[in-house]
Amino acid sequence: MFPKLLAEFIGTLWLVLGGCGSAVIAAAFPQLGIGLLGVSLAFGLTVLTAAYALGPVSGGHFNPAVSVGLWAGGRFPVANLLPYILAQVAGAIVGAALLYLIASGKAGFSLADGLASNGYGEHSPGKYNMVSGLVSEVVMTFMFLIVILGATHKRAPVGFAGVAIGLALTLIHLISIPVTNTSVNPARSTGPAIMVGGWALQQLWLFWLAPMLGAALAGFTYKALLESESAESPPITGRMEIAG
Amino acid sequence: MFPKLLAEFIGTLWLVLGGCGSAVIAAAFPQLGIGLLGVSLAFGLTVLTAAYALGPVSGGHFNPAVSVGLWAGGRFPVANLLPYILAQVAGAIVGAALLYLIASGKAGFSLADGLASNGYGEHSPGKYNMVSGLVSEVVMTFMFLIVILGATHKRAPVGFAGVAIGLALTLIHLISIPVTNTSVNPARSTGPAIMVGGWALQQLWLFWLAPMLGAALAGFTYKALLESESAESPPITGRMEIAG
Amino acid sequence: MFPKLLAEFIGTLWLVLGGCGSAVIAAAFPQLGIGLLGVSLAFGLTVLTAAYALGPVSGGHFNPAVSVGLWAGGRFPVANLLPYILAQVAGAIVGAALLYLIASGKAGFSLADGLASNGYGEHSPGKYNMVSGLVSEVVMTFMFLIVILGATHKRAPVGFAGVAIGLALTLIHLISIPVTNTSVNPARSTGPAIMVGGWALQQLWLFWLAPMLGAALAGFTYKALLESESAESPPITGRMEIAG
Amino acid sequence: MFPKLLAEFIGTLWLVLGGCGSAVIAAAFPQLGIGLLGVSLAFGLTVLTAAYALGPVSGGHFNPAVSVGLWAGGRFPVANLLPYILAQVAGAIVGAALLYLIASGKAGFSLADGLASNGYGEHSPGKYNMVSGLVSEVVMTFMFLIVILGATHKRAPVGFAGVAIGLALTLIHLISIPVTNTSVNPARSTGPAIMVGGWALQQLWLFWLAPMLGAALAGFTYKALLESESAESPPITGRMEIAG
Repeated sequence: MFPKLLAEFIGTLWLVLGGCGSAVIAAAFPQLGIGLLGVSLAFGLTVLTAAYALGPVSGGHFNPAVSVGLWAGGRFPVANLLPYILAQVAGAIVGAALLYLIASGKAGFSLADGLASNGYGEHSPGKYNMVSGLVSEVVMTFMFLIVILGATHKRAPVGFAGVAIGLALTLIHLISIPVTNTSVNPARSTGPAIMVGGWALQQLWLFWLAPMLGAALAGFTYKALLESESAESPPITGRMEIAG
Repeated sequence: MFPKLLAEFIGTLWLVLGGCGSAVIAAAFPQLGIGLLGVSLAFGLTVLTAAYALGPVSGGHFNPAVSVGLWAGGRFPVANLLPYILAQVAGAIVGAALLYLIASGKAGFSLADGLASNGYGEHSPGKYNMVSGLVSEVVMTFMFLIVILGATHKRAPVGFAGVAIGLALTLIHLISIPVTNTSVNPARSTGPAIMVGGWALQQLWLFWLAPMLGAALAGFTYKALLESESAESPPITGRMEIAG
Repeated sequence: MFPKLLAEFIGTLWLVLGGCGSAVIAAAFPQLGIGLLGVSLAFGLTVLTAAYALGPVSGGHFNPAVSVGLWAGGRFPVANLLPYILAQVAGAIVGAALLYLIASGKAGFSLADGLASNGYGEHSPGKYNMVSGLVSEVVMTFMFLIVILGATHKRAPVGFAGVAIGLALTLIHLISIPVTNTSVNPARSTGPAIMVGGWALQQLWLFWLAPMLGAALAGFTYKALLESESAESPPITGRMEIAG
Repeated sequence: MFPKLLAEFIGTLWLVLGGCGSAVIAAAFPQLGIGLLGVSLAFGLTVLTAAYALGPVSGGHFNPAVSVGLWAGGRFPVANLLPYILAQVAGAIVGAALLYLIASGKAGFSLADGLASNGYGEHSPGKYNMVSGLVSEVVMTFMFLIVILGATHKRAPVGFAGVAIGLALTLIHLISIPVTNTSVNPARSTGPAIMVGGWALQQLWLFWLAPMLGAALAGFTYKALLESESAESPPITGRMEIAG
């Protein structure tokens, strides 16, 4: 069990350091900044790279909502939920602390800029209200888990899950950074919020509630509705031989 | 059949929510916006991620033109065409509605901005005329289907079709967003048009006609001309052993 | 042989329509343009997508320099060189004509803007001189062929060649668009040059000479030096089991 | 042994020419420049493409820190360390010289602009201090080696290592270019520093020390802690069959 928890710790640390780090350090660099597109790519690549590196050790969740969604989908034992979530949150906090250590070595850095914390209402990057944030986080996490459950299913082509899942996180950020700064991951929200405190901690409840809800819903939906039949018609990602 | 139609519904919902959502919410975000490059990536990633997640269930069409092109290419039974197309259009409409729900939570949002509807002439993003729009949509959908038919053929390497097809949609958007906002998918055009009404509905005919035409043409071409011979020379994507 | 030539025709058409098309239509779109990064991605994705779709039919060259380099590397029969090159050039010309048809549907379009033709000196996008252009095209095509010859070798993992080769073309554009607008492909240079005439035709010699030279050099180098030994130590892209 | 060293020479040449070249030539191109996002992609793609092309020959290190980390992880024989590192440094120097040859063909080019050398303090692109630079290079190289060791492990899916490792380098650049211009590779730092001299050579020590330290630490950590147990629960990148 220790290697698994270490893998989850390192992977979630990487997700926060890489994703939030790209946002804090590189997004708004004068003239040449990577913008929201670069940040979206960075978040996705933390998961893609860690999925191939550490996925074989722990399953590569790096996200309490993913662990819960996999449990709801019948793919993860309930006994492992709590240790996994604790390891993920610990990794996220250490990742945020490492980011602070690096980012604060520049004159003018301030935690008051938010360290890429998630927020809604006046703390939404695009000033979207709480209902938008709630709907967005539920729907995005729902779809994230549908991709995870489908791409790791025994019907899917072997080895591609890390690509599909990582790029799904990139896609989710491409859509929703302006709404909530994008969480879909309670651990990712907790790391920076603990460093920043104040409003970031006060709004943290939404980024535990909404992703967990969306993930559980996806797990039950996938298991009940999408898994119930083996493929009759040829999949587009496999071989298609059936004549019209 | 129900899981298949549910998969097509969810996948097309994801395509509209993700692709049009990135355009409406994130493309023009001040300073850091993802621009047309980010929107192109988002559209492609909706298909890439859903292909691995849901492709094994339904074949992963998410597009009436794809279903028609696969039928023309002898890969999809005609009896399934109508139910697939209905599920796709329903998913697109719900996707557009969800996008409206999220996007309208920001002060100043207006459906009059188009919700990423497709258009030509004065409603083309770059003011391209109707002939340009028609040619672009026919040619782009033709090439999209060539990629789909080729990458899912039994000669192609297993598992890579989702990458090739998703990134083909990204490429098509990189070229043609300024011309028509890029459709190549009648369902994707229908979702936002129904929310927006007016000009978007009046111009919708082109985004059913042109993609269907291009797709059918590609299906017949692939089946008649490109499938007629097994590879004699070594494919660049496989093994090349033949000496000069 | 006809399906092979048709595949090369369509693939090279796609390369010119997609790569040059993204440059002409979308690169400089106001505020949201895809820039040189988007154009680089588009060129690479034309090859990636066509490699999976049409590679199994023709080998997926889409480029006279690639055909020559594969011949020099002992992977392509000399008898096929001329028909392949003719099909590629024909496809490039039709691709440029289709691009003209679409792009000219906008008020203010002018062929005098170059239709993404390649050039050096005063026609280099960044005003690089002829020597820079020559060196850049030779070196970039040399490396392109090293990637092609290596990634399609029987030692390399099956199926990934299309990803490696397509993204190699993206990388080459990320480096060298400012120098020559990037060719590494005589057919790609010929298509727009024929539409534009004048300086584009006068400078076309360099974009036949340099890529051919670089490609042939790579073919001989790979065959003589890099193919001469089977792997003793474990490849980073495979399994690594040897202890230190 | 000669083909291996030639492969390391060519691969590291490509890394410096492609990565630093995109930064020098294309990053700040007026209006359309590729920015830090494009440079990040270019660095990653040099490794991705060379991994598939040359990885089967030499293992595809292209980086003294990678060779050291693989040795620390028990995957690379100590006797090969010195020849590999010499070949890598030679390739990096020739790559930087080729870049100078191409880039200097433009009026106004100056080596005083740094040729994409790495630096800290006043030579950090974002003026980050030496401690930030040191921490960033150690942590980033540590994670780079974790990805390399994990993605090439026999537990990981075959063939995907080149994608994961290349995109890990992209991710590392997305985070840390503003801090040190990103090294994680002593050879990459040495090439431009030798051309530029002065401050670039004076600060070069950090870009040998920190990457070597991070890499060795990762090698020992992976071998001691992450390799010690075979996967009990199903990996997210493989098949997941265990019910909750």
